[in-house]
Amino acid sequence: MEREKTIGFVGFGAMASRMARNLRVAGYGAVVYTPSGRGGSDGDCIVGSARQVGEQADIVIVCVPDDRALNAALYGQDGLLGGMRSGGLLINASSNSPEASVALDQAASALDLTALDAPISGSTPEADAGELVILVGGPEEGVRRAQPIFDIIGRLTIHAGPSGSGSKLKLVINGIMAAGMVALAESVTYGLASGLDHATLLEALSAVPVVSPHHKRKLKNVFAGDISSQFPTRLMHKDIGLLLTAAAGHALSVPLMAAAAQLLSLTRRDHADDDYSASLKVAENLAQTHL
Amino acid sequence: MEREKTIGFVGFGAMASRMARNLRVAGYGAVVYTPSGRGGSDGDCIVGSARQVGEQADIVIVCVPDDRALNAALYGQDGLLGGMRSGGLLINASSNSPEASVALDQAASALDLTALDAPISGSTPEADAGELVILVGGPEEGVRRAQPIFDIIGRLTIHAGPSGSGSKLKLVINGIMAAGMVALAESVTYGLASGLDHATLLEALSAVPVVSPHHKRKLKNVFAGDISSQFPTRLMHKDIGLLLTAAAGHALSVPLMAAAAQLLSLTRRDHADDDYSASLKVAENLAQTHL
Amino acid sequence: MEREKTIGFVGFGAMASRMARNLRVAGYGAVVYTPSGRGGSDGDCIVGSARQVGEQADIVIVCVPDDRALNAALYGQDGLLGGMRSGGLLINASSNSPEASVALDQAASALDLTALDAPISGSTPEADAGELVILVGGPEEGVRRAQPIFDIIGRLTIHAGPSGSGSKLKLVINGIMAAGMVALAESVTYGLASGLDHATLLEALSAVPVVSPHHKRKLKNVFAGDISSQFPTRLMHKDIGLLLTAAAGHALSVPLMAAAAQLLSLTRRDHADDDYSASLKVAENLAQTHL
Amino acid sequence: MEREKTIGFVGFGAMASRMARNLRVAGYGAVVYTPSGRGGSDGDCIVGSARQVGEQADIVIVCVPDDRALNAALYGQDGLLGGMRSGGLLINASSNSPEASVALDQAASALDLTALDAPISGSTPEADAGELVILVGGPEEGVRRAQPIFDIIGRLTIHAGPSGSGSKLKLVINGIMAAGMVALAESVTYGLASGLDHATLLEALSAVPVVSPHHKRKLKNVFAGDISSQFPTRLMHKDIGLLLTAAAGHALSVPLMAAAAQLLSLTRRDHADDDYSASLKVAENLAQTHL
Repeated sequence: MEREKTIGFVGFGAMASRMARNLRVAGYGAVVYTPSGRGGSDGDCIVGSARQVGEQADIVIVCVPDDRALNAALYGQDGLLGGMRSGGLLINASSNSPEASVALDQAASALDLTALDAPISGSTPEADAGELVILVGGPEEGVRRAQPIFDIIGRLTIHAGPSGSGSKLKLVINGIMAAGMVALAESVTYGLASGLDHATLLEALSAVPVVSPHHKRKLKNVFAGDISSQFPTRLMHKDIGLLLTAAAGHALSVPLMAAAAQLLSLTRRDHADDDYSASLKVAENLAQTHL
Repeated sequence: MEREKTIGFVGFGAMASRMARNLRVAGYGAVVYTPSGRGGSDGDCIVGSARQVGEQADIVIVCVPDDRALNAALYGQDGLLGGMRSGGLLINASSNSPEASVALDQAASALDLTALDAPISGSTPEADAGELVILVGGPEEGVRRAQPIFDIIGRLTIHAGPSGSGSKLKLVINGIMAAGMVALAESVTYGLASGLDHATLLEALSAVPVVSPHHKRKLKNVFAGDISSQFPTRLMHKDIGLLLTAAAGHALSVPLMAAAAQLLSLTRRDHADDDYSASLKVAENLAQTHL
Repeated sequence: MEREKTIGFVGFGAMASRMARNLRVAGYGAVVYTPSGRGGSDGDCIVGSARQVGEQADIVIVCVPDDRALNAALYGQDGLLGGMRSGGLLINASSNSPEASVALDQAASALDLTALDAPISGSTPEADAGELVILVGGPEEGVRRAQPIFDIIGRLTIHAGPSGSGSKLKLVINGIMAAGMVALAESVTYGLASGLDHATLLEALSAVPVVSPHHKRKLKNVFAGDISSQFPTRLMHKDIGLLLTAAAGHALSVPLMAAAAQLLSLTRRDHADDDYSASLKVAENLAQTHL
Repeated sequence: MEREKTIGFVGFGAMASRMARNLRVAGYGAVVYTPSGRGGSDGDCIVGSARQVGEQADIVIVCVPDDRALNAALYGQDGLLGGMRSGGLLINASSNSPEASVALDQAASALDLTALDAPISGSTPEADAGELVILVGGPEEGVRRAQPIFDIIGRLTIHAGPSGSGSKLKLVINGIMAAGMVALAESVTYGLASGLDHATLLEALSAVPVVSPHHKRKLKNVFAGDISSQFPTRLMHKDIGLLLTAAAGHALSVPLMAAAAQLLSLTRRDHADDDYSASLKVAENLAQTHL
């Protein structure tokens, strides 16, 4: 496949593999490195290092779980940056700290590469449907170049500002998402403890405009016993940790987010790989536990 | 006007007066007592006590701010209960404690009256449009009798269970509403402190399904400088206080709701009668204050 | 016994009965009404109502659990206020809301009685030893009159200001006490989860000046398996609830106190009558529970 | 000076320089590297890198502010580990993450060095007086070797367990310290808002056993207008951040600590280098601010 129609992938989990599927339909090929050794499928060209991805593609999407994985993927002997050709475009779709995004931008610029932080808002259903929202930080020119790809995997691109801005905006959004779930968990737990039944709560909370569509879907799933992962607890727990650290870095007071993080921490104990809406189930269980 | 087409009102503030307007269009008259002495208009029959309302109407809607006002309106020499005729229907649309609703039910039953706790989900725009959601606790027969009225003022009636259930469900919903606003406030404040601008935040948060329609509207209003009251801070602060007390009564742990209450408390200091979304403005100001 | 050496007691629980014992040693007799019907002993003159206490004593100590019990004890047909003679002194040692203390002062003044709010800092060991600290609100003259009694039951009297000031100061102190215990609980739980052992934690926390003597004693007790009540969880949970309500009434933000209340709420579920330091055990158990 | 009586210092801030002074009185000399370029005095042998400290001393005390500074001091070309001779003893008195302590132990072992994590409980007054408490993690043999030094700078050594245990215990203690201060801040703020005066609060809180000696001292200082640094806010804020991260790593729920961190964050905005008890002043100011 011609080089300009090849997208490199470093990290190929639930989100990246779905992006690749939609890109394939649109005529793009993929060259893939999975740090975990898992993932990828017959149609994908799997290579042995992030560096090799960079050697074979001029546009690379990085989608790894956290700062540590990002640093491991980018830097060092076998890192992506060592392989990419001058002029390449690195689209970092990971949810990592703003600091890591800024550091990547600097490292990339020094190598005459363009880096965008482009974390994704949306879970697996939106990834399947090509309905993601892409939150981008980085230079205008890079965003223009990436736009055709963003248009395939997503329904909306928001260019939030210079490098790091996408990562920051992602923390804003995921903070609201996490807090919204914990708010639901605490409220619903009170409702149940007070004698309201599941059906009434589901009917009411599905009907009012003060609950988001996302959280309505989660509530329905959890009440139906479905906590299969669309967005795993361990990643949400990590994201709210990033938000707390970032807010502390700006000397802000965010007591509600700090409280939200605690139920996610408790949820991670037994549901790290389940959907983060398992927190609702955990809150419900806690209300019935003798300690 | 014939008695069965007369609705009594005890309390005639922003919400009740809007309900009355829609009921008037549907052919109902109103007899009104306003504890504050404010409110009511030319077309309304204003009387001098809650008791007199009860003497002149068989169906009475009570809509007062809190437990204290409710007790003052219902009981004692000039109270509503002293005036109502046997067989009357008392629709308590106030947001009060579940305990007060249960106490009202008992007092009403002793007088051969039917009482419903029927707090309202929705603010002034929904009240204007007859689009409220009515959360009802009480006997089935009472709900059936009230249904024509609920159908005029609202778009949906949810019968949540026996007496007190409407009040409980209201606390569930308002807890989510309050926490959602504080989550927005903290997240947006971080976003701004980190360098994101208002326009980007508004665009992004308006686009994602993890923010509720209600909170999107509030965000837009606050960013446009509009904190005029649709739902005043003092009432939201009271409601989350009721939720915390109720949760404590069930020996539950609700740290996020407890945290949400604090920003509303701070907001009440200077914005008691502004919309509760002023909390977002307060959080933004706090982030820029030297202490 | 001569009237001036008779102390009336309304409420005769763990604290009041210990005060009475020390007063008896000092030559005072007691006339006692216990709303619960429990308490009192052979030597005590037990009467059938709070009113009767007031009829037989010019100085009455009220020591009941909360606002509701206080109101029941004071007002109405059989209430204390109805029995006391003009010029009497009412020492309210209960921990109740500042509002209730102010209301009592007004009601007492109208009857030419002097009322002091005089809640007690200290638990059963301090009560046994006559080492309580008495936190007093009310008129100077009343404090002077009560001083001989305070000197027998306590080691220090702090006159905090006008009526209600004692109740306020009590909330300040009990907030610190509660929060200190929850801080200990969370920190120790982390320590244990991280691999530190109980003995090391006890040694270290007993040695540093950042843990109060009170909390050191509690830590030692809980680690030794002793959560027998010196100050029951239900009362501490009530007190922190009063503090949160009072702080909200002043439009303050107290997120830490609000968080502290949550673990006490959880503790009350199974340990309402155990010592409030059971919260440490609950936190430890929670850290090992699968939810 | 003979080698065995020379103590190396990497980092020579408020705490380390006071330790050195006490060691000098006991006959030890110092060779010092200050990463900041500040600190040290005439009598000290100042060298140009951490490595040089290691080349000139077999026992080295490291006392730097955080993980980043620790890593910069230890590793790399000019790092301490590159300079120390086989058999040397590295006493890391910094407050850093348990992970960094474990990593140091591994790196040290590989070089046939003994490393102890030995953070210090106590502020500048205790350092002056040689009254510190030393919290040690690491091998028994290393602790024995360091004991003579610990006995000079401190009054108590607690050997908490293997490598990392000292760092963990330090987080436990500083969490209690931080939370105790924020509890004091919130309670006192309520007291003042409710009408109690500073003198009454100081008298009462100084008299009760539920406030620690440390916090009593702080309260007195702050009320006297003294927030000069004994333990700066930026370091306490860092420590509680480490505790939150560590607790999250164990999937624990620590809502009170999370709340405590917020006021410290707010305090750091304007009082990073003032004593962390400035949080009390910040809370007091916040209670009077219009937002």
